Amino acid sequence: MTHPLLSLNQATIKYAPLADALRVTADAGYTSIGLWREPVAEVGLAASVKLVEDSGLRVSSMCRGGFFTLAEGAERRAAIDDNRRAIDETAALGAPALVLVAGGIPAGSRDLIGARSRVTDALGELSDYALEAGVTLAIEPLHPMYVSDRAVVSTLGQALDIAEQFPAEAVGVVVDTFHVWWDPQVLDQIARAGASGRIASYQVCDWATPLAADVLLSRHYPGDGVIDFASLTTAVVASGYAGDIEVEIFNQEIWDASWPEVAGRTASAFDAVVSPYLSGVGVL
Amino acid sequence: MTHPLLSLNQATIKYAPLADALRVTADAGYTSIGLWREPVAEVGLAASVKLVEDSGLRVSSMCRGGFFTLAEGAERRAAIDDNRRAIDETAALGAPALVLVAGGIPAGSRDLIGARSRVTDALGELSDYALEAGVTLAIEPLHPMYVSDRAVVSTLGQALDIAEQFPAEAVGVVVDTFHVWWDPQVLDQIARAGASGRIASYQVCDWATPLAADVLLSRHYPGDGVIDFASLTTAVVASGYAGDIEVEIFNQEIWDASWPEVAGRTASAFDAVVSPYLSGVGVL
Repeated sequence: MTHPLLSLNQATIKYAPLADALRVTADAGYTSIGLWREPVAEVGLAASVKLVEDSGLRVSSMCRGGFFTLAEGAERRAAIDDNRRAIDETAALGAPALVLVAGGIPAGSRDLIGARSRVTDALGELSDYALEAGVTLAIEPLHPMYVSDRAVVSTLGQALDIAEQFPAEAVGVVVDTFHVWWDPQVLDQIARAGASGRIASYQVCDWATPLAADVLLSRHYPGDGVIDFASLTTAVVASGYAGDIEVEIFNQEIWDASWPEVAGRTASAFDAVVSPYLSGVGVL
Repeated sequence: MTHPLLSLNQATIKYAPLADALRVTADAGYTSIGLWREPVAEVGLAASVKLVEDSGLRVSSMCRGGFFTLAEGAERRAAIDDNRRAIDETAALGAPALVLVAGGIPAGSRDLIGARSRVTDALGELSDYALEAGVTLAIEPLHPMYVSDRAVVSTLGQALDIAEQFPAEAVGVVVDTFHVWWDPQVLDQIARAGASGRIASYQVCDWATPLAADVLLSRHYPGDGVIDFASLTTAVVASGYAGDIEVEIFNQEIWDASWPEVAGRTASAFDAVVSPYLSGVGVL
């Protein structure tokens, strides 16, 4: 079966155009999908909205905004503007949250602390806009191995320190097991995030070693690695989160498999290692 | 020049047998070296002690003990016994600290929390032995990308939470820039570590992306990456640490270079990006 809260993040079937992704996901019994901006842009926003409506699927989140660690200047302005467009698209597609990847340390800089402060500055510029659009900006802490070139926000605690400077409806956090499972503080920080209504998205995939040569592609089906989904999922549910749960996997082998096979395999993996900890949740 | 507190960790010239490592290090003007157990074992402990004495070098640390995350049984007993031998060797060579790599999650397990608790248990068995030998067990938090297969201790704060359960003379921590630089809490935790006399070793090398295909080999000369040695070194010095500072680099290209070249390049890299923050320290 496919759990009623399970959402297939489109990146898991990366090469599927939007229409195919929606069809494959619905056909596999899902009721929710996480979308990415690029495949939406390929068909245009209005056509995408229509495709989503016709699919009957919920859109659990939109991926992604962010990348705003640059110092003031034309490039930073362009990034802020692009985030406003991303907020518009998220609202149009009916997704509750826009996932934000903070961005890395700008080229030629060693100022990690400064880069981090510019993330907060950017949210200060965007939070009202998001609030008006009814979209939560969801800061995704990424694993610390991505800190220099992708995301200077590395832990759930750090993401919450930033988010809590804004209204909970405007800025929340993503809890992605791959990125946070290693953190000795993760269970406490999940409880903190839930207590203040800050969990905007819960995403699950697994960690296994050796890491892929391209460390971005080291994600696996839940159950194929060493992450304890019991403790993490139990903590997320106990914190009060009752939204969709996405499976988002970047993995070349999975990308090369057929889309229906991946959608089915994802649902059964989820059922085996995540669903058991969702009793009472998602009875819509 | 070669800074009086600079120590060449032997792993930086990995293929050099002990006698060569000592000679190359002394010839390059260093007064200190960090040793590894394997090259010591190759010539035997007594012969190694003699070689070190003849070299005139201090031994800044011994690498490494640890790897004690296994559940109770014969393998765990062997690991504990091996750590006692490592403490003996550290004392015999006159090094103040034995660097500990905690070990990963045991094969077939997903119990990260359990693995972490067994690290504390092992230190409970070893701390008195270390105290009597005059050796500090130095827990090295490793970058979270190594958490599953190498070290379940991932942050300085976590290492201190463990170390502080024991006397400061018995259990301390290693501050290795490569492993901790990304941590949003790192400066506070360095201050905490220094205030309680827990910094047993300060090690410097740099982080650059893309990571090497084998992520263990992604370390670089200080200055060749994005780490801000100013803030980290200033924090370590301000915390009261005045011991040797090791450069420890795992990098195939550096391993393939000539040993004197590496020793010289290490000293000049250190002088360029670390020494400026050591004024008043190491005036022995």
